This record gives sequence, C-alpha cells and structure tokens, in this order.
Amino acid sequence: MNLPTQVRIVDVGPRDGLQNEKQVIDTAVKVELIARLGAAGLKSIEATSFVSPKWVPQMGDNAEVMASIQRLPGVGYPVLTPNLKGFEAALAAGAEEVAVFGAASESFSQKNINCSIAESLQRFEPVMAAAQAAGVKVRGYVSCVLGCPYEGEIAPAAVAEVAATLFDMGCYEVSLGDTIGTGTPGKTQRMLDAVAARVPVGKLAGHYHDTYGQALANIYASLERGVAVFDASVGGLGGCPYAAGASGNVATEDVVYLLDGLGIDTGIDLNRLVDTAAWISAQLGREPASKVARAVLAKRGACV
Amino acid sequence: MNLPTQVRIVDVGPRDGLQNEKQVIDTAVKVELIARLGAAGLKSIEATSFVSPKWVPQMGDNAEVMASIQRLPGVGYPVLTPNLKGFEAALAAGAEEVAVFGAASESFSQKNINCSIAESLQRFEPVMAAAQAAGVKVRGYVSCVLGCPYEGEIAPAAVAEVAATLFDMGCYEVSLGDTIGTGTPGKTQRMLDAVAARVPVGKLAGHYHDTYGQALANIYASLERGVAVFDASVGGLGGCPYAAGASGNVATEDVVYLLDGLGIDTGIDLNRLVDTAAWISAQLGREPASKVARAVLAKRGACV
Repeated sequence: MNLPTQVRIVDVGPRDGLQNEKQVIDTAVKVELIARLGAAGLKSIEATSFVSPKWVPQMGDNAEVMASIQRLPGVGYPVLTPNLKGFEAALAAGAEEVAVFGAASESFSQKNINCSIAESLQRFEPVMAAAQAAGVKVRGYVSCVLGCPYEGEIAPAAVAEVAATLFDMGCYEVSLGDTIGTGTPGKTQRMLDAVAARVPVGKLAGHYHDTYGQALANIYASLERGVAVFDASVGGLGGCPYAAGASGNVATEDVVYLLDGLGIDTGIDLNRLVDTAAWISAQLGREPASKVARAVLAKRGACV
Repeated sequence: MNLPTQVRIVDVGPRDGLQNEKQVIDTAVKVELIARLGAAGLKSIEATSFVSPKWVPQMGDNAEVMASIQRLPGVGYPVLTPNLKGFEAALAAGAEEVAVFGAASESFSQKNINCSIAESLQRFEPVMAAAQAAGVKVRGYVSCVLGCPYEGEIAPAAVAEVAATLFDMGCYEVSLGDTIGTGTPGKTQRMLDAVAARVPVGKLAGHYHDTYGQALANIYASLERGVAVFDASVGGLGGCPYAAGASGNVATEDVVYLLDGLGIDTGIDLNRLVDTAAWISAQLGREPASKVARAVLAKRGACV
C-alpha cells in the first residue's frame, strides 16, 4: 500500500477555530496567528469568513484581517463565502481564494440554512461565475459526510452526489467534512470509495473532527486511499456546536506528528507549529488542548 | 483487508492507571472500579501490582484488593509480578494470572531496573516455573517497542527478540508497549511484521500510549495486521512519567468507539464504560480526560 509522499494541510484555525470562540478576539491577534502559521510552513490558511456579522460576529473584522495580513509567496488564504454578497465583499477585500459549502444531509441543510441541498448549491452558481470572471479559486466543503446530528447515518452516495456537483461547478478541491466527528476508518474508506468514483481522489481533502478522538485514524485510513490534503486547526481551536464542551477540529500538530512519523512531507516545522499552538492558546487564556502540544511542551519543560 | 471480527480489551486502569496517581486512593474505590469494569463487559482487568510498596506505594494494598474483588465468570484479573517474591505474594493473595515484563531497549532496562534485558528475563525464569506449577497464566509485556526515552529509535528486531523470548518462556500472550507514545502507524506495522515472524500474531497484544495522540491510528494499523487484543485504561487513567502533564494510556472508551464503528465485537457496553470513566474521574476530583467520555457526557447533558 503506497501512501502519498506529500500532504498539504489547510489550517482552518483562524476561521473555523476562532469563529467558535465566545470571547472577542482582537484583529491583531488573528493577523498574527495567520502570520505565525505561514512562518511555520502552512501553505493554506483559511483566513476569515464573509458570512454576515449578524450570524458570525466573531468574523465581523473580515475586511480588516484581509487588509492586514502579509501574504507569503506560495501560500493561499481562502475565505468562506456563503453567497454572492459575501463573495463580492471578499473580492473587494482582496481575497484570491474563496470557499463555498453544501451539506450531505437534507435535515442539516434545512435546519442550518433553511433550504434543500439542491437549493443551497444553486445559490452558489452566481458565486462560481463571478469567481471565474475574477480569476478567484473556489474550494468546496461538504458537511456531515460521516454522520448528521439530526438524521444519523449518511449514505456514501449522498456525499458523492454533493461532492461531484461542487466539483462539476468548478471547485478545484472538495473538502469532505465529518462535522460531528462520529466517523471511524471503515466508514471513512467506504465514503471515500463512493466519492472517488465521481471526483478524482487528487481533488479531495479530508476534514475530520476529533470529537470522538477518531480523526487521526480516519486520516490514516484516507491516506491509504490516496487522499493527500487534510484540514486541521492549530491547537485544536474550535469546539463542537453539537456537543458543548467536546472538541471539534483535529489539531494541526497532531496531524503533522502523524505525517512526520509516516515519512510524509508537509513542509511544516512541528516545533514552530507547537509554539503557535501555545501562543494562541495563551491569547485565549488556556492551555493548548492537543496531545502533541502538551507532550512537546512538557518535554521541553522537563529539559529546562 | 480483513480486520479481526472480535477484539479483547485488557483494561489496565486499576494498575497502570492508578499507580501513576499522586493522591492516596482507597482500596474500596479500586475494588469498585474493578467491579464496574467487569459490569461494563471487560473480560480482562489488570487488578493490581505485587511490586514492593517501597517502589510503588499506590499498590501497597494489593492483597486487600485481591481479597475484596468479586470475580465474574470468564473475566481474568492479572496482576503485575516483578520477581518470585512478588509472584508468591500474588499467588497467596489468590491471583490466577500474572504479568511479567522486559524492555526492548537496553538503556531503558539499565536505567529502570539496573540490569540488562537478558538478565531481567532470566529473573523471570523461576516465576514462569512457579506459575506453571501453580497453574497460573502468565502474560508478558515488552516496553519501548516504538521508541525509548533514552535511546530514541528501537529496531523492530530487538522487539521481536524480547517478545519471542517471553513467548518461548511460556507467556500465553505478549503485549507490545509503546511506552512513550511516539509510534505512528507505519512504524507500528514494521514492528509487528518483525514480531509476527517470531510469535503468532494471535498471541500478540498492542499496548499503545496516547501521549502524542497516535494510539487509535496505531491500533487501526495493528488491526490491519490481525492483532486482536489491545490494552487500554478507562478514562485514560495514568499519565506519562517521561513527560509530566502529558497523557499516557489510551482511553478504553476511545478504543471501544473505534471498534464499535468498525463493527468489531468487544462485548463492552460503551455507555456503562463512559459512566465508569465519569465515576472514577469524579473520585479523583477531575473531569474525564478522554474525547469519547467528554463528547458522550456533553451530548447527554444537551439532551437533559
């Protein structure tokens, strides 16, 4: 079994992580987090969201963030855009890459954005057209690919259908999200097999939440299927809106430790990444949540 | 790739977990923990240790624990025995199964028990003979199978040598310990391949610490190699003596969640196991550390 030799990690901490924080976070802290992630070697950093500040007040400074970040060559800074209005604001703010999203679960789509999956994807058609005209890359997210908080199991074929639609609409990559973290490796591989029959595996990313501690096992199972892009969040930033007090995004440093151990190149410096996890956690007034950050910091302490 | 259809989990929480706790734990709490694990469906529960109380004061009540536990039919209650004196005390206390141990690292053996690997294994020969005479089963542990805190990398052949010696001495099962939790799936499979060339895979167990969050990925990689026994600790009890503040044993409930998701039978009731994790954590004055316990308890809270 040949695993990929290189993996790209998309750090979603500044967006998917920080938007779930209750406390107000200074724009300067967000900008510095993005800079530190770039300096640690991340090649894709989800910078902010152009969802209405009525819904996500934590991302209300999106234009300031985009105006303040120092862009490194070869690094992408995608932003989330829910509709054409968001896309236009993102474009005006200088975004060169955006992300759109659809759910693999009808119940989730209805409860979260009050429309069907098909309607939600239709709404992105003008975004895709505007992005193409502006030369902006579009990434697609599919949520609930391994389970839904409302309807439980999700058929792999339903995931494949949404992923194929996003890909056919022009998304350069489709990120498959285990929104509630209930996936395990067998399910993950069956889901990937269904999706890969419709979208080339080289265009897929895994976005697995670690709510039940399964994310690294699912990433390993995905590597076995040839997936070579994974979303993660430095320090494990961001909780789980479906289980208050539980964890959400898998920590970037845990993923990098796994990949380093497998001899897979990420271009990321684990020590600088752990420094970044410690720094942002301190800004938020807590210890880093990830096992790797805790173990590396404990070992450093032991050597002093 | 066919994974095992059944897995046995050895809960080492009452011994490997509690012996690392600083606070004094009542014998009654230990006995109740063992009872709760049995009621949750565990078939192997490492009950205590017959190491000298000078070295491990937390296990000084070993005979009282053994006298007080209610043994369930079909459930094994192994105890750790470092030498013949410990074995005789264990036998007098009614132990029907014991565990002996060797390191795969010379430096670790020298620093921890002040003798070579070969000498340490020789010391167990009278234990093996006495156990055979008494009809007591002996389990073998190998430590440092995926890395050593003193010498770093450990050659798979060195692990295979110690595992084969323990098996040939009469151990019915050999548990392979990633003592410092630095293993990743590729290394794990290479180590298992070397060991399985000397000891039948059906006689091997994986004992992977979760210090760097890799344990479930390593368990999944081991299932792919046919390993069907894993050691774990309810609630993730027990820290890491080599990195203060970091985690040690993988949580039993995280392992059971993985196996349930893979459709592998363990005979364990996940909800009762989570109850047990919450109960022992409360006895120790803290929240359960495991992701599964936190997520399941958070979801239950959300439903109240």
